[in-house]
Amino acid sequence: MRGGTVTAQVQVGIIMGSQSDWPTMKLAAEILDELGIAWEARIVSAHRTPDRLWSYGREAAGRGLKAIIAGAGGAAHLPGMMASKTWVPVIGVPIQTRALSGVDSLYSIVQMPRGFPVATMAIGAAGGANAGLMAAGILATSDPGIAARLTAWREALSASIPEVPVDD
Amino acid sequence: MRGGTVTAQVQVGIIMGSQSDWPTMKLAAEILDELGIAWEARIVSAHRTPDRLWSYGREAAGRGLKAIIAGAGGAAHLPGMMASKTWVPVIGVPIQTRALSGVDSLYSIVQMPRGFPVATMAIGAAGGANAGLMAAGILATSDPGIAARLTAWREALSASIPEVPVDD
Amino acid sequence: MRGGTVTAQVQVGIIMGSQSDWPTMKLAAEILDELGIAWEARIVSAHRTPDRLWSYGREAAGRGLKAIIAGAGGAAHLPGMMASKTWVPVIGVPIQTRALSGVDSLYSIVQMPRGFPVATMAIGAAGGANAGLMAAGILATSDPGIAARLTAWREALSASIPEVPVDD
Amino acid sequence: MRGGTVTAQVQVGIIMGSQSDWPTMKLAAEILDELGIAWEARIVSAHRTPDRLWSYGREAAGRGLKAIIAGAGGAAHLPGMMASKTWVPVIGVPIQTRALSGVDSLYSIVQMPRGFPVATMAIGAAGGANAGLMAAGILATSDPGIAARLTAWREALSASIPEVPVDD
Amino acid sequence: MRGGTVTAQVQVGIIMGSQSDWPTMKLAAEILDELGIAWEARIVSAHRTPDRLWSYGREAAGRGLKAIIAGAGGAAHLPGMMASKTWVPVIGVPIQTRALSGVDSLYSIVQMPRGFPVATMAIGAAGGANAGLMAAGILATSDPGIAARLTAWREALSASIPEVPVDD
Amino acid sequence: MRGGTVTAQVQVGIIMGSQSDWPTMKLAAEILDELGIAWEARIVSAHRTPDRLWSYGREAAGRGLKAIIAGAGGAAHLPGMMASKTWVPVIGVPIQTRALSGVDSLYSIVQMPRGFPVATMAIGAAGGANAGLMAAGILATSDPGIAARLTAWREALSASIPEVPVDD
Amino acid sequence: MRGGTVTAQVQVGIIMGSQSDWPTMKLAAEILDELGIAWEARIVSAHRTPDRLWSYGREAAGRGLKAIIAGAGGAAHLPGMMASKTWVPVIGVPIQTRALSGVDSLYSIVQMPRGFPVATMAIGAAGGANAGLMAAGILATSDPGIAARLTAWREALSASIPEVPVDD
Amino acid sequence: MRGGTVTAQVQVGIIMGSQSDWPTMKLAAEILDELGIAWEARIVSAHRTPDRLWSYGREAAGRGLKAIIAGAGGAAHLPGMMASKTWVPVIGVPIQTRALSGVDSLYSIVQMPRGFPVATMAIGAAGGANAGLMAAGILATSDPGIAARLTAWREALSASIPEVPVDD
Repeated sequence: MRGGTVTAQVQVGIIMGSQSDWPTMKLAAEILDELGIAWEARIVSAHRTPDRLWSYGREAAGRGLKAIIAGAGGAAHLPGMMASKTWVPVIGVPIQTRALSGVDSLYSIVQMPRGFPVATMAIGAAGGANAGLMAAGILATSDPGIAARLTAWREALSASIPEVPVDD
Repeated sequence: MRGGTVTAQVQVGIIMGSQSDWPTMKLAAEILDELGIAWEARIVSAHRTPDRLWSYGREAAGRGLKAIIAGAGGAAHLPGMMASKTWVPVIGVPIQTRALSGVDSLYSIVQMPRGFPVATMAIGAAGGANAGLMAAGILATSDPGIAARLTAWREALSASIPEVPVDD
Repeated sequence: MRGGTVTAQVQVGIIMGSQSDWPTMKLAAEILDELGIAWEARIVSAHRTPDRLWSYGREAAGRGLKAIIAGAGGAAHLPGMMASKTWVPVIGVPIQTRALSGVDSLYSIVQMPRGFPVATMAIGAAGGANAGLMAAGILATSDPGIAARLTAWREALSASIPEVPVDD
Repeated sequence: MRGGTVTAQVQVGIIMGSQSDWPTMKLAAEILDELGIAWEARIVSAHRTPDRLWSYGREAAGRGLKAIIAGAGGAAHLPGMMASKTWVPVIGVPIQTRALSGVDSLYSIVQMPRGFPVATMAIGAAGGANAGLMAAGILATSDPGIAARLTAWREALSASIPEVPVDD
Repeated sequence: MRGGTVTAQVQVGIIMGSQSDWPTMKLAAEILDELGIAWEARIVSAHRTPDRLWSYGREAAGRGLKAIIAGAGGAAHLPGMMASKTWVPVIGVPIQTRALSGVDSLYSIVQMPRGFPVATMAIGAAGGANAGLMAAGILATSDPGIAARLTAWREALSASIPEVPVDD
Repeated sequence: MRGGTVTAQVQVGIIMGSQSDWPTMKLAAEILDELGIAWEARIVSAHRTPDRLWSYGREAAGRGLKAIIAGAGGAAHLPGMMASKTWVPVIGVPIQTRALSGVDSLYSIVQMPRGFPVATMAIGAAGGANAGLMAAGILATSDPGIAARLTAWREALSASIPEVPVDD
Repeated sequence: MRGGTVTAQVQVGIIMGSQSDWPTMKLAAEILDELGIAWEARIVSAHRTPDRLWSYGREAAGRGLKAIIAGAGGAAHLPGMMASKTWVPVIGVPIQTRALSGVDSLYSIVQMPRGFPVATMAIGAAGGANAGLMAAGILATSDPGIAARLTAWREALSASIPEVPVDD
Repeated sequence: MRGGTVTAQVQVGIIMGSQSDWPTMKLAAEILDELGIAWEARIVSAHRTPDRLWSYGREAAGRGLKAIIAGAGGAAHLPGMMASKTWVPVIGVPIQTRALSGVDSLYSIVQMPRGFPVATMAIGAAGGANAGLMAAGILATSDPGIAARLTAWREALSASIPEVPVDD
């Protein structure tokens, strides 16, 4: 089984519609690794493996997941369908697509009807990484250690910005 | 139970995400009534009643449905999720929405990944009526009577067009 | 003559506006081959060969075609014009375009007025393949053998999805 | 028969997909009347009356038409299909639509492939009036009287613009 | 001071760029009231009261806020700027706008760079209500009582959906 | 002649393509009045009165204008054409339009090629008012009195924002 | 001087905003060469050489030009400004752009106000070639020889379309 | 310290959200160098270094800056937030982005609410260069030397345009 810290309780599930989404989604996993948060990654296709989606959603809260990061592209139904199956917060990542650049993914994820929010991130790589940070923020609301590590991570990011641009 | 010709075998299921979609979707029902095709209408919300979606999809082929017309708006997951549960042809109707005028509905319905097509219609009222005609066309491929009635319906439409526009 | 199983009755016509659409459209042909459905492919340009469009449409039902898959790009008039000439279900494939990425093709195909539906698929390659599956679904409504093969195809697709993503 | 100066040779044909397009298209007719150019108006639906389109296009040049103004909305195929049937210049007017505001009409009309240009005007009322002026400009290239009247019309328009805005 | 349960510890801050956003944002407050979660509402304009934004963000974690719901329209900088000032999860609500229907709000909120996620909701009313539910979901990850009430709320929503649509 | 303080040297020219733009453009004039800056307003249509545009642009610098506010809608050529005729800073206001909501105006104004910038404002009313403030900011770079009044205006705006939203 | 048949009377002017537009615009020139129509090509930038635009427009009719093909990209003001200076029909070609793919060019060209039509072509290469054909169509309305050559050109295009697509 | 003429009083600040924006933003710097205007360049991220933004804005007027050029991409909050902190004119440059091509940047920068204008330039390279010219235009309103150099720069640009396009 894929996961950052296999002996720890998995707190964040990272799911995606297909293997081709992994380059975007593993940016979330890398952030979680940096922050010491245990995760697992699964391919769960809303259309090709709907039963897998069903069971993952039904068991999410009971397994102790605190956040589910779901990436999908095009008619991106995975995040919203997962949100309909569990109250565990779902963070959606719109994968960039070929024809519509991910605007299709974005609209399919963010425009959820009343009752079933998906915490939508930016299209593509920035959204992948930010999904990890959003999951960490959710965990930090009840885990001071994660709050401290997240604060440090943010401060390090700010400190890394040079003052003056340089020519290549 | 709602339906055009209740004693007949229902051949077309009309499903929609919410009661507010009915004004658009009943245009499909009216076409089916005109063509003498038995239908039923159900509210099946992908997010609010996912289990209803599951069972409707699982039973569709066995119940003898030949086409399923599915209307939804916004993050419109109903048509695509139904297409993932049954091989019975799914015809999608993008409901017009307030902020994005149905472009969100359209992208969520039409941009399905390889494996699970949804026969997508125009946004709004034209799409509702055309969904009925597309269902009729599917049935007509194996029912000469429907083919004849559909042909007559089309000829009557063409014959109804005046040659010269008139002032109001 | 181009076709999957030349001795069989052709059941699906695949038409396209130009030779350059074939890489997208042959994905439909490949699906039909996998499902044992006889097809033919023709270049029928709405603008450059309108008379060919006229005669193809007029003869479609009589020749026993059960579905017509039509691909076109830009001001993509072929699917809709074919739908105006025959009641045989027309499945439209929006070809991806250079400047507008196929949004022009999509709008030109999907936004048909009341009376003449086109079953619109996703832009580009996914749409090409799905057009073949939609045609198969239409045939399956009256051919249990195709229904069985389509069901098996779908199950194989689902079974092929790994559970866990892998790094490259 | 509808027309500005019935005894004169009709020089401009105004065609439209439906009666509901007339409020936009008659703005073209009014301009032609102001410039003393004989016109006729016809409802020619690409989808509902394709044969009417065929014969209108085939006879256009022989009947002495010098320009055809074609208005249509949504999947607006009329202008482009007319352009495929005659070399007589076709001027396209994208009718404003409910869901997509006429962007669908615009893309369906303007994005014509190599070989079959449509002289596309602005969406809606401005496009309707300008279609009349474009037709006049075409006629003016071989009719000095029309050139003179068009020049005067333009000068009057310019002269009508006040220098300073006023409160309502 | 505005708040649902004034004697309770405020857990969710609802901030917005202007009074005119309140009709959308109070839908979040109503959900929080239904779920028994204490909230406060403040007008904090990124541009007109940047110092208020600064101090609100700096104090958020220390004051015990577990989520901040931020609504803004147009060049909607409030959610993202708040996310840059605190690790407390920020939920963004794109307010519908006049010219661009809230697409401007959506892009300004969701397209955050790596480091500063905003959990973006749907444009307009659905997004307002869902922001309350997302905040509740975040709180539920560490509060079984809220998890139970949220589960019940969701079940009640599902149970309220009729099976069959009715004419008006 | 229209102007805020007719005896003073006019410092800001407000030009617009048509009388119908005045409700948007007079919001700029009102801001300038509040800040004690003399302005004039003229209708200058790029297409209907190109010679007026030419002479206004050629004389702008010599007449002592420090900024030109130009509003236009649709194919909004006025701001950019004015920028090609004078080095005096041109501030462009995209007027909201019927079919395309001012996206056409915005693109026509903002996408200027290298050499001829237009300081583009928001679509519609906010852009009209902000054009006045941008002109004031330009003047303030060399007029401490205007800088002081602009600072006070901004502080008054910030002070006017209530802390807590109220129900209607 | 650049031109197809230098000894002949130039009938079509091809103008463009910059040298970089020539690869698109020379497709118009090639069509005119094929049809034996004399043309000239000039760089006329609306913003960089407005006086050149002025004089070209003022002299167009007198020089015997029957059509002006104008290509421009981004805030594409050249076609519309030319249309404001002469009644000679202006055909606009929206050049494809880097950020907005030519949608900015298209809107800037097509959305002309009442009074000044631009016959807008498709974005990019198809539009370039079609501009030549549209100019030929205009000339053909008063030149039977061009009408005959244009008819032959169209027939040859239609005849060149193969019936069946081939694999590469 | 980075700057064109270090011993001179810096008149224009060029700020950007990240080092990756410098290739676009240095086009502004090059224009300022050509016009002999002293500038400085700084990386000021609205989200990663908000305090840097705060202090830069607070000190801008006092330090004698006459214009601030701010470039940012995606949820581009830097220009607008800077405009909220200082009355010094802010010129915004929308950086081209990967998924949305800079439309997100453009909307985030241009759609500012009443009170805080940002002088928005074109997306990408043209916008970068034009920001320098706009800053020069602002300075020229009170510096005849800059006005003269800007006029000469513009005349040289116009003079550099060849009359006739050439093949590559």
